[in-house]
Amino acid sequence: MRDVAIIGVGMHRFGELWEMSLRDLCLDAALKAIADAGVDHVDSLVLGIMSSGLFVEQEHVSCLLADQLGMGPLPASRVEAACCSGAMAVRAGYAEVAAGLHDVVLVVGAEKMTDITGEHAASVLATAADQEYETFHGITFPGLVAMVMRAYMLKHGATAEQLAAVAVKNHRHGALNPLAQFRAQLSIEAVLGSPMVSDPIHMLDCAPVSDGAAALVLCPLEMAASFSRNQAVRIAGIGAATDIMALYRRPDITRLPAIATAAHKAFAMAGKQPGDIDLAELHDAFTIMEVCALEEIGFVERGKGADAAPSGLTALDGKLPVNPSGGLKAKGHPAGATGVSQIGEATLQLRAEAGDRQVKDATTALTQNIGGVAGTAVVTILENSSH
Amino acid sequence: MRDVAIIGVGMHRFGELWEMSLRDLCLDAALKAIADAGVDHVDSLVLGIMSSGLFVEQEHVSCLLADQLGMGPLPASRVEAACCSGAMAVRAGYAEVAAGLHDVVLVVGAEKMTDITGEHAASVLATAADQEYETFHGITFPGLVAMVMRAYMLKHGATAEQLAAVAVKNHRHGALNPLAQFRAQLSIEAVLGSPMVSDPIHMLDCAPVSDGAAALVLCPLEMAASFSRNQAVRIAGIGAATDIMALYRRPDITRLPAIATAAHKAFAMAGKQPGDIDLAELHDAFTIMEVCALEEIGFVERGKGADAAPSGLTALDGKLPVNPSGGLKAKGHPAGATGVSQIGEATLQLRAEAGDRQVKDATTALTQNIGGVAGTAVVTILENSSH
Repeated sequence: MRDVAIIGVGMHRFGELWEMSLRDLCLDAALKAIADAGVDHVDSLVLGIMSSGLFVEQEHVSCLLADQLGMGPLPASRVEAACCSGAMAVRAGYAEVAAGLHDVVLVVGAEKMTDITGEHAASVLATAADQEYETFHGITFPGLVAMVMRAYMLKHGATAEQLAAVAVKNHRHGALNPLAQFRAQLSIEAVLGSPMVSDPIHMLDCAPVSDGAAALVLCPLEMAASFSRNQAVRIAGIGAATDIMALYRRPDITRLPAIATAAHKAFAMAGKQPGDIDLAELHDAFTIMEVCALEEIGFVERGKGADAAPSGLTALDGKLPVNPSGGLKAKGHPAGATGVSQIGEATLQLRAEAGDRQVKDATTALTQNIGGVAGTAVVTILENSSH
Repeated sequence: MRDVAIIGVGMHRFGELWEMSLRDLCLDAALKAIADAGVDHVDSLVLGIMSSGLFVEQEHVSCLLADQLGMGPLPASRVEAACCSGAMAVRAGYAEVAAGLHDVVLVVGAEKMTDITGEHAASVLATAADQEYETFHGITFPGLVAMVMRAYMLKHGATAEQLAAVAVKNHRHGALNPLAQFRAQLSIEAVLGSPMVSDPIHMLDCAPVSDGAAALVLCPLEMAASFSRNQAVRIAGIGAATDIMALYRRPDITRLPAIATAAHKAFAMAGKQPGDIDLAELHDAFTIMEVCALEEIGFVERGKGADAAPSGLTALDGKLPVNPSGGLKAKGHPAGATGVSQIGEATLQLRAEAGDRQVKDATTALTQNIGGVAGTAVVTILENSSH
C-alpha cells in the first residue's frame, strides 16, 4: 500500500451563496486546489455530495464536474454517506492512490443547500435517518439530536451553559477565518436566548444550512515533491465505521460508538494516540456533537466532554485546539463539503498557512466527520511529512 | 497492487417488486452473495445506487444496509454515477482490496424505481443529464437517445429492423434467465409495432423501469481459496472514463468515446484484446446503445454494429454472445443494480453456472456499464482464475 499525501487545498467560502450554482462552487474549489498543488494533470476525480438529487435535481455530478473542468475522459465518481460524504470521498480517493490505480486524484466535496426553503432542506437532511422508522413519523435531525443532548445532560450533569460555550468558542475561531459563513462572535447569553428549536437545542446550538465546496489534491507521498512545491501532508491514518442507524434501537443514546471505532482504526493505522494530536476539526453540527466526539475519540474522559470548552482546553490557545476553522457551527456546513473542508483546514494548519487562526507548532492533526447521528463516522489523522 | 477476485455472487430477480422495499432488496442480494462465497465476515461495504433520495426519500443507504445486515461497525459508503453506479461501486471495492485497505469487500448494487409513477421515474432518470442545459428544457432520456439513434441510422444506413433485432435477441436470452424481468420472446414485428416513444425509438427498443439488487464478494486473489470454495474469477482489467455531459456540446453524437476510453484502459490493464473475449454484457438501455457499444469497444468495425444481432454474431450460440443474461432490455434495469448484475452474470458464466443460458467454454468476459448517454462509462474484464 502506497503512502498518500495531500499536496493541494482549495476552498470556496461557505455561506448562503445564491449567486452560485452547485457546478460553480465545485469548479471554484477544484480549480483552487489544482492551482495550489501546481499539478498539470489529474488522473481521477472523486466527488463527495450528500444529496444533489434532492437539493438541486442533479445526479451524475461527477460527470458534470469532470466535463465542466474540461477534464473528460477523466474517470469520475461520487461518494455519499450523508453528512460524511466528504470524508468518505477522501477515503475513496485515498484507496485509489494507495492501490496504485491512479497517481493524482482530485477530491471535491460540495453541497448547494439554499436553493430550496429551510424547511425543505431539513427534510432533505432527514433522509440521513431511517426513512421508514424515523423520518416517516415526522422527526428531523434537531429532534433526534435533542434526545441525545437531553439524555447526556441528565446522565452527566452537563449544563446548557457548558454546551453553549462550544458555540461561543467556535464562533470566536470562525471570526478569524475569512472562509467562514459567520464571523460574528457570540455570548453564552445570546446562545441561551436564541429560539428553542427542539428542547434543549437552541437555534445557536445548531450549525447552519450552507452552500459551499472544498477540494484536495492527493498523490503518492513519494511523488509529492515531483508534483508540487507545497509541503506535503501525509494521511497517516483513516478509519471509517457504522452504527445502528435508528436512534430508538441503540442501547445507549449518549454514546456514539461509530466515532470510537473509526478513531481506534485511524490511530492504529497511524501508530498514534490522542495525546499526539496538536489540533482537531470535529463535527459540531450541534454543540453536543463536539462534546460527544471529544469523548469517543479519547481526548477527554467519558462524561467530561462538556468541561472542555468552558475550561479553555479546546480554544485556539488551549492544550487541544478544536475547530480552529470555526467548525460546522461558524464556518458553515454544506453537507458534502464539510469532511473535505475539515481535512483542508487541517492541511493548511500543518503547512502553517492558517493565518490568524494558526495553531502554533502543529505537526499532527485529526479530523472527524459523521453522517446521521453518527450512523457513519470517518476519522482521519494527518501529519506534516517533514515531521 | 493486489490482484482482486470475485468469490461470491447474489442476485434478486429484477421486476416490478411492489412487495419489497429498497432495504429488502439490498439485504436479499447481499445475504445471497455472502452465502455463495461462504465467507464468515465482511470487512467493508460499498453500495451502488443512483438515486435513493429521489426514488424513495432515503440517503445514507450504506449505513442503513450495514445496520440491517447486523454488520455495523463495518465501514460502508455509497457510490453514484447515474446508471453506472453499480460498476463504479465495484471499481471502488476493487480499489479498497487492491490497496490492501480491506480483504473481504461486499459490493451491492440496487435501485427501487417503481414506488413512484413511471412519469416521475423518467424525471428522476433525467437527473443523469445536465439539469440546467438539458432537462430544464423538458427532455428526458428517450428523447436524448432518439437523437443518437436517428443520427446513427442516417450516417450508417442502419434500419429500424436491425435495431429491433437487438431487442429480439436479448429477449430470447432473457427467456432462459429465471432472474429476468421479462421472459417472453419478441418478434421484429412486435418491436416495430409497439408505441413510438420518441421517434425512432419504439417502446420495445427501451429497457424497462425496474426494482432489483445484485451483490458481489471481492477479496485478494491470493486469499480466494482460503475464503471460499467457489472458483475465483479475477478482475483482470477495469477502466472508467467520462465524456462531455450534454449532447448538444458533443462534436459527433453517433460516437460514445467514454466507452472506447474505458475499454482501452481495461484491455491495457488486462493485457487482452477484443478478440480474447468469450462473452460480453453490454449496456442496452436502448437497442442503439448495444450497437454503439459493440463499435466503441472494438468488437466490430465502426458503422457495422447494427449487423451484429441480425447476423447472429451476438447470439448465445454466436461467435461473440452479447447479453446472455437478457441484458437491461429483458433482464431489467434497476439503475444502480445493473453494473453489479452484469459482473455477477459474467462471473456465473465463467464459473459455468449459468444454466440454460451458459456460454460454452467461457474463460474471459467483458462487461460495460454507462451513466447518462455514456457521459460516464466503466468497462471490466474478468477471467476464470484457472485459465
